[in-house]
Amino acid sequence: MKKVEAIIRSSKFEDVKEALEESGIRFFTFLEVKGHGMEKNDEITYRGVPYDSGYIPRLKLEVVVKDKQLNQVIDTISSTARTGKIGDGKIIVTTVETFIRVRTGESAEAAL
Amino acid sequence: MKKVEAIIRSSKFEDVKEALEESGIRFFTFLEVKGHGMEKNDEITYRGVPYDSGYIPRLKLEVVVKDKQLNQVIDTISSTARTGKIGDGKIIVTTVETFIRVRTGESAEAAL
Amino acid sequence: MKKVEAIIRSSKFEDVKEALEESGIRFFTFLEVKGHGMEKNDEITYRGVPYDSGYIPRLKLEVVVKDKQLNQVIDTISSTARTGKIGDGKIIVTTVETFIRVRTGESAEAAL
Repeated sequence: MKKVEAIIRSSKFEDVKEALEESGIRFFTFLEVKGHGMEKNDEITYRGVPYDSGYIPRLKLEVVVKDKQLNQVIDTISSTARTGKIGDGKIIVTTVETFIRVRTGESAEAAL
Repeated sequence: MKKVEAIIRSSKFEDVKEALEESGIRFFTFLEVKGHGMEKNDEITYRGVPYDSGYIPRLKLEVVVKDKQLNQVIDTISSTARTGKIGDGKIIVTTVETFIRVRTGESAEAAL
Repeated sequence: MKKVEAIIRSSKFEDVKEALEESGIRFFTFLEVKGHGMEKNDEITYRGVPYDSGYIPRLKLEVVVKDKQLNQVIDTISSTARTGKIGDGKIIVTTVETFIRVRTGESAEAAL
């Protein structure tokens, strides 16, 4: 199993949520985070002056998926969250060793 | 070392906190998250009509434990946070490669 | 690639932010978390009475780095966030399997 953390624009949240549901994702969590830095090599300019975008509010989604779902979930989030402008966000994938549903005590992929 | 992330009901937080303390856990962090989806196969119904529970506030605890503590911590959180109803939450375990206490610079299990 | 999660004092955030920028870190996220427990073996005392510090607000920074940047980033955060007093925080390192920039679809280290 993998944990997918996606930092996306708040404005894209509803689209990503619907796309994940259509992909069969039954549960995810999200919260507000702040981003800092935003790709200095591609600076935003305003009237020709580089502009420090500072702290930018973003949503971070977290979803645990089966290995075989991973590529589809990445593609779904990436294509749905994309505007093509700086600040579209990142997707971070880590390996989940154990996953347990508290209600039943079920572990591993049975809980997904 | 392992990182245990537990998404639980806010109403169970005090119980889980006390149970973790009794298990010898010295430190954990927590924050509010929102959950979406809540196990569509077990829909909540209201007067017979499936009910979309929407975004549900939850607390997410994060605690780093030694490998030998892992099973006990999972059992402690899982049994304490359980109500048996939909929405009891999840526990996600990942492997921690390095853990450092900032105050002393101690690394690895000595910092736990 | 590695994910570095650093739980630090809010008062140290600006220093750490500047130190990370000087280290060439282009992007990180952060959010507020609460810590509980705070190293019971080193209790804070007030007029000789052990004092339960309870829930303490902290900032959690998350940054994904290349393997070769890891030690420098740990040293930078650790030395900058340190006051030497209880509650200086923790650094947790996990392995990132895949990292994707949403805007371009670039994956792996090219996205850093």
